[in-house]
Amino acid sequence: MNGPVPDTMRAAYIDAVGPADAIRHGELPVPSVGPTDVLVRVAAVAANPVDTFVRSGAYATPLPSPFVVGRDLVGEVVVAGPGAVGFPVGRRVWCNSLGHAGRQGSFAQYATVAAERLYAAPPGIDPDHLVAAAHPAASAWLALFRHGRLRAGETVYVGGGAGNVGGAAVALASRAGARVIATARAEDAEAVRGLGATEVLDHRAPDLGARMRRAAPDGYDVHLDTSGHGVLADAVDSLARGGRLVAMVGLGGGPAALPVSRLYTRDASIVGFAISNATTADLAEAARGVVGVLTDTPWRPRIADRLPLSKTAEAHRRLEAGDVRGRLVLTPS
Amino acid sequence: MNGPVPDTMRAAYIDAVGPADAIRHGELPVPSVGPTDVLVRVAAVAANPVDTFVRSGAYATPLPSPFVVGRDLVGEVVVAGPGAVGFPVGRRVWCNSLGHAGRQGSFAQYATVAAERLYAAPPGIDPDHLVAAAHPAASAWLALFRHGRLRAGETVYVGGGAGNVGGAAVALASRAGARVIATARAEDAEAVRGLGATEVLDHRAPDLGARMRRAAPDGYDVHLDTSGHGVLADAVDSLARGGRLVAMVGLGGGPAALPVSRLYTRDASIVGFAISNATTADLAEAARGVVGVLTDTPWRPRIADRLPLSKTAEAHRRLEAGDVRGRLVLTPS
Repeated sequence: MNGPVPDTMRAAYIDAVGPADAIRHGELPVPSVGPTDVLVRVAAVAANPVDTFVRSGAYATPLPSPFVVGRDLVGEVVVAGPGAVGFPVGRRVWCNSLGHAGRQGSFAQYATVAAERLYAAPPGIDPDHLVAAAHPAASAWLALFRHGRLRAGETVYVGGGAGNVGGAAVALASRAGARVIATARAEDAEAVRGLGATEVLDHRAPDLGARMRRAAPDGYDVHLDTSGHGVLADAVDSLARGGRLVAMVGLGGGPAALPVSRLYTRDASIVGFAISNATTADLAEAARGVVGVLTDTPWRPRIADRLPLSKTAEAHRRLEAGDVRGRLVLTPS
Repeated sequence: MNGPVPDTMRAAYIDAVGPADAIRHGELPVPSVGPTDVLVRVAAVAANPVDTFVRSGAYATPLPSPFVVGRDLVGEVVVAGPGAVGFPVGRRVWCNSLGHAGRQGSFAQYATVAAERLYAAPPGIDPDHLVAAAHPAASAWLALFRHGRLRAGETVYVGGGAGNVGGAAVALASRAGARVIATARAEDAEAVRGLGATEVLDHRAPDLGARMRRAAPDGYDVHLDTSGHGVLADAVDSLARGGRLVAMVGLGGGPAALPVSRLYTRDASIVGFAISNATTADLAEAARGVVGVLTDTPWRPRIADRLPLSKTAEAHRRLEAGDVRGRLVLTPS
């Protein structure tokens, strides 16, 4: 497993931002390793919708050129800089913050990761589950706890409880002692209850706003719509005094109507965040949540398909078509 | 000054929520004093727009009946309950949180105030200035520091810097070491600069959004539009990463278009608050800010007119007509 490191590697990369077809699969030099970096031999990566925004330029962020796409990986340590303590060669590791803000991406046979962005993979967790959970479970953790400031005993609304972010949010919130009301398709309701939701509302109900309010007459302390399909005004109306509506999706969507007076008269907030802005400290705390939700709860990420790294352009096209229900996991050949 | 307390007093009150004409000026019993209460002989009160919302029922809150209107007062202690320590008879005091949430109002010759809602009036401050500052300066303080979490070195936008809330916000933010960009009419710009604004933008400029962004290329850490006339989308676009837009006005206004994606991609928040929801601890902290802005800065509230308490209905009508530029201070006869 720990043979010599070659000079070049296969990678999925672009020369400039553009459409999915701009992604090439070819040879690039294996990256260098700085004093506090770790070179990881990549075992699997997962493709995120945000990867397509970075690739297309919709999410503006500094990128090297050529730019290896992708932010998540699992793999094993092959070289560690002298200041990258705690990462012996062969250690299973994972990361979810490559591929933006000047950092190269993860979709390659090797990736250099700053030690502070790299986490040990716990034993007993399927590497595909870990890489598939890395982004959605970290997003759910940051939404609920870092930005939503959810506490035990509070009531949280999770729109899209059967999705990957939503399911992780239901499981994480329930594990943290919150009362969880979620939405899902009727056929997914039982599974979402199994993650800890006390009530699951049919997300297609025409009177969803009214049902949402009935399920929590005192209002929601945290509202997290992972689907992006909820009605902002209904969400604001259902907040408790001091409630926090966490906004994390909707890139490309038009403006939403905000009833300002109904927001401020209940001391409520709309807290926006993008995981791309998370500090390394926040990401490290979220990483403990990612491991925790996989270790302590029945939640597992839904994996829609497994593909070779050479199919990265196809993976992006499928994500952009919006018909992928679950995660796309890719493996370097 | 400290003669016997009579059984009845003149008060401006309503029997039920309704229009300004429902306000009567007549005799009511002087209120009783509980063990941690203080009976205050009222010297002056100020009429707030929020008083009209409470009176009309637009701001729903429990009210006794008959209900004495108004929330602010300055006066002097005439009776203190055994647990109301620190309030000797004759002490000059002020309050800004009567007249909602079950509490009787301030527009009377006497008012009972819970000791934790009563603050000593500092020497050397004109009582009319103090009562006129009580609500707008406390609102500005809570907006900037409690909800906006403004820190020294940050940049803050104050829309409506020549208004009473806005002027107090400019002075308070400048005193706290923030860089202040404000809007005002051209004829008020010099005065607003005198309160500490580094730049004053003409609030009628057709390209105000662009000017706002040019004045703070790195974005605003806190955005506070006290006028309610700003464009929400422009405000969101001008926020710094992690910026906080404080929403505190707009009751009765329609919904505003919120560009959700531009909010969350910069980790920005919209933080709504109404001073009516403030805790006694927050109000007490804000009270130190009210005294501080009057003691340490050149800001003084603009007083539009002084009226006898018998003209309370007229004061409400004038506030509702929207043509009052400054505070209406009333005195019991």
